[in-house]
Amino acid sequence: MTEKTLTIALIQETGYKTAEQSYQALESRIREAVKQGAKLILLQELHSHYYFPQQENTDHFDLGESIPGPTTQFFSLLAKELKIVIVTSIFEKRASGLYHNTAVVLEQNGEIAGCYRKMHIPDDPGFYEKFYFTPGDLGFRPIQTSVGKLGVLVCWDQWFPEAARLMALNGADLLLYPTAIGWSPEDDQAEKQRQLDAWTTVQRGHAIANGLPVVVCNRVGTEEALQFWGNSFVAGPQGEILAKAGESSPQSMLCEIQFSRTETVRRIWPFLRDRRIDAYEHLTQRYLG
Amino acid sequence: MTEKTLTIALIQETGYKTAEQSYQALESRIREAVKQGAKLILLQELHSHYYFPQQENTDHFDLGESIPGPTTQFFSLLAKELKIVIVTSIFEKRASGLYHNTAVVLEQNGEIAGCYRKMHIPDDPGFYEKFYFTPGDLGFRPIQTSVGKLGVLVCWDQWFPEAARLMALNGADLLLYPTAIGWSPEDDQAEKQRQLDAWTTVQRGHAIANGLPVVVCNRVGTEEALQFWGNSFVAGPQGEILAKAGESSPQSMLCEIQFSRTETVRRIWPFLRDRRIDAYEHLTQRYLG
Repeated sequence: MTEKTLTIALIQETGYKTAEQSYQALESRIREAVKQGAKLILLQELHSHYYFPQQENTDHFDLGESIPGPTTQFFSLLAKELKIVIVTSIFEKRASGLYHNTAVVLEQNGEIAGCYRKMHIPDDPGFYEKFYFTPGDLGFRPIQTSVGKLGVLVCWDQWFPEAARLMALNGADLLLYPTAIGWSPEDDQAEKQRQLDAWTTVQRGHAIANGLPVVVCNRVGTEEALQFWGNSFVAGPQGEILAKAGESSPQSMLCEIQFSRTETVRRIWPFLRDRRIDAYEHLTQRYLG
Repeated sequence: MTEKTLTIALIQETGYKTAEQSYQALESRIREAVKQGAKLILLQELHSHYYFPQQENTDHFDLGESIPGPTTQFFSLLAKELKIVIVTSIFEKRASGLYHNTAVVLEQNGEIAGCYRKMHIPDDPGFYEKFYFTPGDLGFRPIQTSVGKLGVLVCWDQWFPEAARLMALNGADLLLYPTAIGWSPEDDQAEKQRQLDAWTTVQRGHAIANGLPVVVCNRVGTEEALQFWGNSFVAGPQGEILAKAGESSPQSMLCEIQFSRTETVRRIWPFLRDRRIDAYEHLTQRYLG
């Protein structure tokens, strides 16, 4: 059994007014994390900007960029210089009137290893994402890199067991979620706690159901009406919490993952052995009632 | 919005040497729970017997019974007398050489409302279920009763998000899991804690992902090499724990469920709205690597 390990850094940051400010803050944290041994960097969702989907405003489409584009160029130079893999999250302009919420993985040599376009798009008060992002059309395919096969998913995807399962079936070594989730001011403390617990629990559930590590990097800090709740975390393949960030401050968090745990856990809990694929066909239906 | 509520009783019991002893113990707890207002009773997995799948022994097939048979007859009389719905769990003999692990739901009038044959069958040291139980052939169909549409699943099913999702898509009002899970003596305390946490977490995850209450009734007590870990619980549609039983003793636990919570939670978290059914077809594949 391999004893391969991987040190991951989650960069939990606030939203900055400009991309340049974001780049600066993120670069400084990435350099620090690499000094401490990080080989894979996970950034939060839409890290180059404040969380613009709080309003539906056509001017915000100005923030869209191509791939490759300014953000991939910036982080690709950093990846190459530091010999690390970086998972970025970009407001992708694919064509006029066609935008996606896209994770781009940059290799140690600075090249683009692959992209994942957010498949499940939310829309609720303060998170008007359906206005901005066309649902992804690349499917649930892990991205092969020098540090492993990365099952990159984005934020709202984290509530859908189907997404995690398909990444696992496609051979992902771990699941990674750049995220921007927070509380609305009108919710009371008990509701806020339930939401945070649910968010952590459902993703730990994906780790357990698929016998894989799950890595979640969330935005933090208050932006207008929203309080992004941080709490970035890493769970092992039994859903056990390996590392957990705070709720209110930017921070880098390092965590070492042992890939051999997946083999060990899947030997005692071989769920992939026992799936009833002969009885799952209706999962492609909207509803059956 | 309806304010319909339902008081459920989970009967967390030990395994008894004979069916008669089991019936007596369960009847006494059921009568007590009904006095306290229970309208729906959930029993643990294979509640009429000790946990016989600890060994592969052809003599144990003597414990199999038909449906209807002694156990359904006993609990059907009780359901009728007390005007309650009971979810039972039976070692079903369907034909010589063809046995299932089957949940049978009994209506308030004593009739059989429906059956669910355990779809996912485990097999690991101490749980030799593949030797005894043919995988179910009834699919993931909730059972309509006078107290709601019951998404009854059994034990090992609890690790599979597909099962929970299909029950939800088929209109289940809640998910119910009769269960018999426990620790092996060779695992250390940290591993035992991880297993218990994982078991609770993955099922709370089903509640969250589907916006439904989840009710889990587990066996308790030591039988030969296995220590069944109890910890029966009820989670609401945000995965919030509504009630939780102890780890080492038989007990009845009552919990009131408000069905309107499903509507409320699904309005803020409308996952069913956003499922990418156009991209899920490979969920019917064994593996894609």
